[in-house]
Amino acid sequence: MAPADADQPAAGRLEGRDHFLPVRIYYEDTDFSGLVYHAAYARFFERGRSDFLRALGISHSALLTEDAAFAVTQLTLTFRKAARIDDALVVRTRFDAAKGARLQISQDVRRDGELLVEAAVECCCISLQGRPKRAPEALLRRLAPLLDPGASRF
Amino acid sequence: MAPADADQPAAGRLEGRDHFLPVRIYYEDTDFSGLVYHAAYARFFERGRSDFLRALGISHSALLTEDAAFAVTQLTLTFRKAARIDDALVVRTRFDAAKGARLQISQDVRRDGELLVEAAVECCCISLQGRPKRAPEALLRRLAPLLDPGASRF
Amino acid sequence: MAPADADQPAAGRLEGRDHFLPVRIYYEDTDFSGLVYHAAYARFFERGRSDFLRALGISHSALLTEDAAFAVTQLTLTFRKAARIDDALVVRTRFDAAKGARLQISQDVRRDGELLVEAAVECCCISLQGRPKRAPEALLRRLAPLLDPGASRF
Amino acid sequence: MAPADADQPAAGRLEGRDHFLPVRIYYEDTDFSGLVYHAAYARFFERGRSDFLRALGISHSALLTEDAAFAVTQLTLTFRKAARIDDALVVRTRFDAAKGARLQISQDVRRDGELLVEAAVECCCISLQGRPKRAPEALLRRLAPLLDPGASRF
Repeated sequence: MAPADADQPAAGRLEGRDHFLPVRIYYEDTDFSGLVYHAAYARFFERGRSDFLRALGISHSALLTEDAAFAVTQLTLTFRKAARIDDALVVRTRFDAAKGARLQISQDVRRDGELLVEAAVECCCISLQGRPKRAPEALLRRLAPLLDPGASRF
Repeated sequence: MAPADADQPAAGRLEGRDHFLPVRIYYEDTDFSGLVYHAAYARFFERGRSDFLRALGISHSALLTEDAAFAVTQLTLTFRKAARIDDALVVRTRFDAAKGARLQISQDVRRDGELLVEAAVECCCISLQGRPKRAPEALLRRLAPLLDPGASRF
Repeated sequence: MAPADADQPAAGRLEGRDHFLPVRIYYEDTDFSGLVYHAAYARFFERGRSDFLRALGISHSALLTEDAAFAVTQLTLTFRKAARIDDALVVRTRFDAAKGARLQISQDVRRDGELLVEAAVECCCISLQGRPKRAPEALLRRLAPLLDPGASRF
Repeated sequence: MAPADADQPAAGRLEGRDHFLPVRIYYEDTDFSGLVYHAAYARFFERGRSDFLRALGISHSALLTEDAAFAVTQLTLTFRKAARIDDALVVRTRFDAAKGARLQISQDVRRDGELLVEAAVECCCISLQGRPKRAPEALLRRLAPLLDPGASRF
C-alpha cells in the first residue's frame, strides 16, 4: 500500500529564507526550438511563490475568502542557460520585502545547482475587483521573519 | 540538510497496471470562471503518460536520440466535476494496448478519490519529420506486461 | 492613417451555419517535436466558439453580468495532420444543438482547406458557483436559426 | 463569397518604426482572479515580435532552414493596468538594436490607447543546438532602417 502522502504533489521545502520547489519539464513547456519556452519560466516562478506561501499555511483559496489575490506588477527574467525536455529543475524563492499591498521576491531556477534563469518580482495584493489592498495580516506576520533584513521595504 | 532526493520532482508511482501522478492546481491552470481551464487537463494527462514511461526508464530525451517522439492522434476528455485553485489532484494512467506505432491509454484525474475527468487517448510514435514509425523495442518490451490482456490491440 | 478597425483582432466571419476564425501558429503553440502541441488545439477551438458567439453579439463579459459562463463537459479531438510554426489555420465552428444548459458544437481546423483536426464538443452553461444553469434566453434565441435542424437536441 | 484574404490571421501593420498587432483575450489568457494571467503577456509580446519580422518577410520556418531560432535572454514586464476576458488589445513592437546575435526590442500592450503593460526584451539568435550565432544577413539588413538611431547597439 502506498504511504499516506504518496499522492500529494511536491510542495517544496523551506530552508532558512529559501524555499525550494522541484519542477519537471514536460512537452507543454517546450517549443519547436527544442528548448523550454521562455514564458514557461514565469509559470514556474509563480508555482514557487505559491508553494512558498503554502509552506507558511497560506493558500490562494483561503485568501479568496478574504477577497484577496495577487497581481504581478513587475517581472524581470534573466535567461542564462536553456533547459530541455525531461529536465529536473529546482525553483528557489525568497520573499525580500512586504509592506502594505506590496511584495518583493527574488527567485531563480537551477539544474543540478547550475543557474539557468533569475527572476526579480514585484507583486501587489488586490481585491477581486482588481484594486490594491493591504495584504492579510496573517500573511504579513508569517512572512516577517523570512524577509531580507537589509531590504529597503520600498 | 535535505535528503538527497528532496529536490526531485514527484514522478508518481506504479501500482499494478496503474501509474499515479500527483498534480497541484496553480494560477496558470485556472480561468476567469474560477475553475480549472478545460485544456489544462490535456496537459496533466500528458504529464501522467510521460511519468508512466519515465517509471519504466524511458525518457523523451532518450527517445529523441532514436528519432522518436509521440503525437496524440485521438483524445476524448469527459468532465464530471470541476477543480479549483490549490487543489491536489492525482492523475491515474494505464497503457491498454501498444502495437507498432500505436498506443492506447486510459486515464483519469481524481481529487480525494472523487472522479473529476476521464481521458481516452490514442498516441502514435513519430519520427521528428512527423511520420509514424514503430515504437522503439525497449518501450514495447517494457510496456508489454502492463497492457490490458483483454484489449483488442487494434 | 490606419483604417478605424485596423487594430481590431480578427473575430472571424459567419457564413451560413459556419463560423470561420483564422489562427496563427506561434512559438507558444509548438513543442520540442517541432509540431503544434496537441492541447493547443483545445485552445484554438475555444477561441472559435467564443468568436462565434461574439458574432452573434454575445460576449463572455456580458454573460458574466448574468452569472453565466461555459464549462466544457466533453471534448473529442481527432488529429489527422500536424501543423507547424508560422502556419495559418482556420477554425470552423458549428453549433449543432442547444437545449437548457447544454450545447453541442462541431469544429475543425484546416490549413489551405486540408483537414488537420476535428472536434466534437459538449458545453454546459454554469453559474460562477459552478452549477449548471439554463443558458441566457438571448443566447438560445440567437443560436436557434443556426442549429442543425436534424440534431437530436439531446 | 468571402474575400480572398478573409481567412488570413491578422498579422498587424507597420507604421514608421512601430508594428501594431491586435490581440483578443480568450478564456485561456485569464486566471481565477478574473484578470489576464501575467505570463500571458509574455506570449502576446512574442506574437508581436514574430509578426513584426513576418511583416519584413522573415518567418521562423524560413529561419529554421538556416538553423536559426530566437531565444529570449532578458525580459522585463511592467504591469500598469489589468485586462479582462473579451478585451481587444494592441501589441506595439519596436526593434531598437540588432548586432551580431543580439536584438533589443521595446514593446507595450494597450487597450483603447491606454497603456497596460510594457516590455523590454533582449533576444539572441541561436542555432538549433542552442548556441548563439550571428543573425541571418537578410534579417539584419531588413531591420537596419527600422532600428533606433540613438540606441547604443550594445
